[in-house]
Amino acid sequence: DLVKLTADQFNTGSLVGKTVCITAGPTREPIDPVRFLSNHSSGKMGYALAQACIEAGATVKLISGPVNISPVDRAEVIAVETAEEMLSAAMEHALGVDLFIAAAAVSDYRVAQRAPQKLKKVDSDDLQLVLVQNPDILASVAKHPQRPQCVVGFAAETNDVVRYAKDKLARKQLDWIVANDVSRTDSGFNHDDNAVTLISATSEQSISLAAKNQIAAQLVTILAASL
Amino acid sequence: DLVKLTADQFNTGSLVGKTVCITAGPTREPIDPVRFLSNHSSGKMGYALAQACIEAGATVKLISGPVNISPVDRAEVIAVETAEEMLSAAMEHALGVDLFIAAAAVSDYRVAQRAPQKLKKVDSDDLQLVLVQNPDILASVAKHPQRPQCVVGFAAETNDVVRYAKDKLARKQLDWIVANDVSRTDSGFNHDDNAVTLISATSEQSISLAAKNQIAAQLVTILAASL
Repeated sequence: DLVKLTADQFNTGSLVGKTVCITAGPTREPIDPVRFLSNHSSGKMGYALAQACIEAGATVKLISGPVNISPVDRAEVIAVETAEEMLSAAMEHALGVDLFIAAAAVSDYRVAQRAPQKLKKVDSDDLQLVLVQNPDILASVAKHPQRPQCVVGFAAETNDVVRYAKDKLARKQLDWIVANDVSRTDSGFNHDDNAVTLISATSEQSISLAAKNQIAAQLVTILAASL
Repeated sequence: DLVKLTADQFNTGSLVGKTVCITAGPTREPIDPVRFLSNHSSGKMGYALAQACIEAGATVKLISGPVNISPVDRAEVIAVETAEEMLSAAMEHALGVDLFIAAAAVSDYRVAQRAPQKLKKVDSDDLQLVLVQNPDILASVAKHPQRPQCVVGFAAETNDVVRYAKDKLARKQLDWIVANDVSRTDSGFNHDDNAVTLISATSEQSISLAAKNQIAAQLVTILAASL
């Protein structure tokens, strides 16, 4: 496979001596002991990036929400469930690293009052679920005094993808953002393939539809060169 | 393995010529194209029941929500996502069968207004999610003029398990209900083991902690004898 060979050759040793922290997968926000809010992130992109960074020689910590993927050999996995747990893990493991990649699809909201017992179906037809905003993990890391050297975010959108991504890049003080059109039926959430645009304050590079591990290798090539 | 051997011997041929329909797994209720409400059901109990019914000689249709389990050999799988899709599949496949087992953990509620595009995080801290009740699949099947000969429900509860189960048995006009304490840390949702109580209007039988396929074989033994 020529693309993978090429990417591997570029990446070999490109991250030797570097520390990388990656978040991956969805978070789950409990409503009660059996119900939760979540999203369709499979974790594949984050795990592929961890694999690519390992192959490039980095020391990798992978903060992972609940996924059904085999662990990445030689990456240290920190398993979390909620956004608040992911934030704690990021504060412990991401500060001061060379490269932080936030590939997780963190739930923006959690349930205001988590019920200690399973909620019973009530007689009324409607139910109001009050949600409160979760902490912004990416911005918390990017704006921290011990900020990683390079902070990379993802923008998974269904419309106006690049516009939203550039806004997020500036607002959260990121170095790079990977824009991802999840409305495409051939890529994105829960797919093995992806097509992304890697955006910085001064550049914009499209990576065309390919397997997520090939996309990951190409992203790592560009990111490693920027360190 | 003595328990499995015994159960297999009881079940061999006990459902020959019988039609069985089983629901399994969680449902997912979309909030927008990327977010959803769901629950911790793994689908293991429903899949184990399908396997046990196949081994007992039945023709099995398995209506399955999104799970990460290998399909059951010789069972016809109907894959669904939402409660409404599961109801449609049940109306098509469950009516008139000999045995209907509703092992799925159907979301009681769905989001009133599904957003066609990914919702943006808003400036206000709170978000009200309006939920409406989903159709009651089990009661719809049990109270239908073409009701299956035998209708079995599950009651996954975290407290007052048997009391809630008996109430559900009567209210939904079931023949049997399998009461399941999902607050136990050694069994239930997402575990390979389970411990249940099988309840009818006139009887109550406890099945102690065992692997889900052994629990399934014991349940099928009792259910087959009742047909």
